[in-house]
Amino acid sequence: MSTVYKFGPHTISAGQVFLKTQYSLGLVNLKPILPGHVLVVCRRNVPRFLDLSPEEVSDMFQSAQRIGKVIEKEYDATSLTIACQDGPAAGQTVPHCHVHVIPRRLGDFVNNDDIYEKITAHSSELLKHPERVATVLSNTVANKGVDNEDRLPRTEEEMAQEAARLESLLSS
Amino acid sequence: MSTVYKFGPHTISAGQVFLKTQYSLGLVNLKPILPGHVLVVCRRNVPRFLDLSPEEVSDMFQSAQRIGKVIEKEYDATSLTIACQDGPAAGQTVPHCHVHVIPRRLGDFVNNDDIYEKITAHSSELLKHPERVATVLSNTVANKGVDNEDRLPRTEEEMAQEAARLESLLSS
Repeated sequence: MSTVYKFGPHTISAGQVFLKTQYSLGLVNLKPILPGHVLVVCRRNVPRFLDLSPEEVSDMFQSAQRIGKVIEKEYDATSLTIACQDGPAAGQTVPHCHVHVIPRRLGDFVNNDDIYEKITAHSSELLKHPERVATVLSNTVANKGVDNEDRLPRTEEEMAQEAARLESLLSS
Repeated sequence: MSTVYKFGPHTISAGQVFLKTQYSLGLVNLKPILPGHVLVVCRRNVPRFLDLSPEEVSDMFQSAQRIGKVIEKEYDATSLTIACQDGPAAGQTVPHCHVHVIPRRLGDFVNNDDIYEKITAHSSELLKHPERVATVLSNTVANKGVDNEDRLPRTEEEMAQEAARLESLLSS
């Protein structure tokens, strides 16, 4: 019987996990906001970055760095957005400490910082402002002309394929 | 003769430094975008998070956590925004690896994620889109009704006072 991992109240699909360290998991996304957008999640189901032990902090961000090196190259990017929304007033919607690592390219968003609005919308189970998400989406150069249907959840198979590719790159 | 610290091409005023660890410095801001907005800067003048050694990564984020605990309480906040714009395509404007740590309260921004636009504008020496900054500023509940003059650089003395207070809280 395989281990069940949780992300807040949600069960993580085994196929989403591409990195397991002592204290952290690397997960591909159901609805990435840009290609290669992944999460580093603390194995311990605690809400806040402030709740982590020093060892957990080190492990999460060393993992974010390892993953960042791989996804920046794999997704032909030149930079990374690394962000932790630590608590509800910072936009956190799943109460389980996690860090977003997102490959960035010049011009991937017309307004560079619109990505954070998408991070928040992405994290939310119930999108409270769908009209805002649509606006942000329309500002995404990479997605220009696409509509919300393109952000339907990916299939388990798609996620498992990406996770297998990242796992292989991380171990090579 | 005192040590001179650099932040990218800029010299850091000694009065801005409130934490010195083996690999990182904690700095108060010339123009904080919310009260208590501070930076954790790698002592080594390298542009990318990806350039850091594992020891530097651990030190920077363990420092961010120590500082976060103190500033969240000191500034009567309930959450933290922790963000690293790693490279120009992610909005980084000073080419020296740094992490923003910002105390957050519910409602401090009408649109929660406008804070990232301010982080980018804040980091920039030459604000390329002053009209956008003004818009974001007008959306800030905490600053409602104030104008751009309220974002004039703080004095050395103001910064030194805040740094002394944070230094004292961190050592207590």
